[in-house]
Amino acid sequence: MSSQPPSFEGDWYFEAERDGFAHGVHLRERILEEQTPFQHMEIVDSEPLGRALILDRALQTSLNDEFMYHEMIVHVPLVTHQHPDRVLVIGGGDGGTLRRVLQHPVKEPTQVEIDRAVVDACKAHLPEISDGAFDNPRARLVIGDGVQFMRDNPGGFDVVIVDSTDPIGPAVQLFQEPFYRDVARSLADDGLMVAQSSSPLFMADELSDQVKQLRKVFPIVRTYLGIVTGYPGGLWSYTIGSKRYDPTVIDQASITSTLRDRGISTRYYSGAVHHAAFALPPFIADLVA
Amino acid sequence: MSSQPPSFEGDWYFEAERDGFAHGVHLRERILEEQTPFQHMEIVDSEPLGRALILDRALQTSLNDEFMYHEMIVHVPLVTHQHPDRVLVIGGGDGGTLRRVLQHPVKEPTQVEIDRAVVDACKAHLPEISDGAFDNPRARLVIGDGVQFMRDNPGGFDVVIVDSTDPIGPAVQLFQEPFYRDVARSLADDGLMVAQSSSPLFMADELSDQVKQLRKVFPIVRTYLGIVTGYPGGLWSYTIGSKRYDPTVIDQASITSTLRDRGISTRYYSGAVHHAAFALPPFIADLVA
Repeated sequence: MSSQPPSFEGDWYFEAERDGFAHGVHLRERILEEQTPFQHMEIVDSEPLGRALILDRALQTSLNDEFMYHEMIVHVPLVTHQHPDRVLVIGGGDGGTLRRVLQHPVKEPTQVEIDRAVVDACKAHLPEISDGAFDNPRARLVIGDGVQFMRDNPGGFDVVIVDSTDPIGPAVQLFQEPFYRDVARSLADDGLMVAQSSSPLFMADELSDQVKQLRKVFPIVRTYLGIVTGYPGGLWSYTIGSKRYDPTVIDQASITSTLRDRGISTRYYSGAVHHAAFALPPFIADLVA
Repeated sequence: MSSQPPSFEGDWYFEAERDGFAHGVHLRERILEEQTPFQHMEIVDSEPLGRALILDRALQTSLNDEFMYHEMIVHVPLVTHQHPDRVLVIGGGDGGTLRRVLQHPVKEPTQVEIDRAVVDACKAHLPEISDGAFDNPRARLVIGDGVQFMRDNPGGFDVVIVDSTDPIGPAVQLFQEPFYRDVARSLADDGLMVAQSSSPLFMADELSDQVKQLRKVFPIVRTYLGIVTGYPGGLWSYTIGSKRYDPTVIDQASITSTLRDRGISTRYYSGAVHHAAFALPPFIADLVA
């Protein structure tokens, strides 16, 4: 048994393993490393993903795969809701979510991000991801705690997008029932929320639990899937909690025409991909049953 | 910039990197390592995937993710073809494909595998994957070169499944037009073939080229996607070349009833997953346009 792993020449970033699975990227440059008041932050330049943001040793987003994640966490809910005027983003410090929100005819979207250092670093080193969204006069950025923001219950939102880190560290409360109750209270009678909901392959328990929490609060709960190259295992999930609109019953042609009418071009999302994303393989459907 | 990669304690298997992306699994045991006449072969027991087969340093299949791959490479074509009596498998030495073929009402499926050592090792160390398929009296195993077998043009097949390693090493001819022409000649007038067609994320050029080769031979060529945890990036593609049946136009309810009528239970595949798999995100659709 003499076989050796391939030698990894040069500088590599390996993500903390999950369940004995590890993945890593070859680095061209380590651009920034900083302990913020909330989390450990790195920005690197990598061969497969380009420049990338890493928080608490988990790769969050990169120039090369950000479109996969941001198109799916934004366009699915904003096409599902029939008139998404008032949109709130919790987290999303890289600005990729806000940028896609602004592609829709929303009024004054608000973003609440807890860590100013993430916004500043992403504006400085990953400006292609927000593409000017933070400077858009329609957008309002609040540096603050999303949990407290929802507890203060501003009210009247059509769509709330929870674009957070994983359910460990500063984001843990964003995955629990009390937060979801506050979100539901702040939503209009036909409002809906979406949250990233972990890896069905390596965080199956977290996904199951999150869906259970959402079911306590929302009558319609739907999990959907997408690929994000830099995430462990490649497969990622998102879950919608909705008071009225069911994302699985929208006509595919109407999605296509909505995207066209709004002038939104995409690289991952489409009307066909919208419906395909909700077709869960049975072993994943069992996790959220 | 002092951050260090996490230390990987114990024994790990890392796959040869692709484009600066690497993934690996924590090993519980190295079970077998052998240089066969055709390729380097390892069998390991890993924490996330259980026991697994590795050929030429590429993870082929494992107890924990084999269902994702085998259900998609078999059930999609065998549900698409309306009467798949005569089925040929090229490659597939672990037996997971043959096992799923035998779940359909096929007559005497034939498998042509070039490397007897792979079959023997999988029967000895990964018997759960073939689940007795090699001993099924309906099945016929030929140890031989699939390219030569098709060149000899046995004829009369309804479905040919090319379950090969990647387009490097012994399998390279299985990705080229002359082989596809031989397959087409051996297929009945309404026959179809399917082949694994690489990672859309890390082998995009290989996928594009393979689809081009298939288009030279078959009037209907359709690429579909699935997740395989142990493959680089998690996302994998399969491509069907067909003379008559289009896999994208089958009624979803008829797939469900076909599975039920044939007594096939699945963990990955379903009628909904069948259609979802053909909904390519635009950046992947561009690769096969």
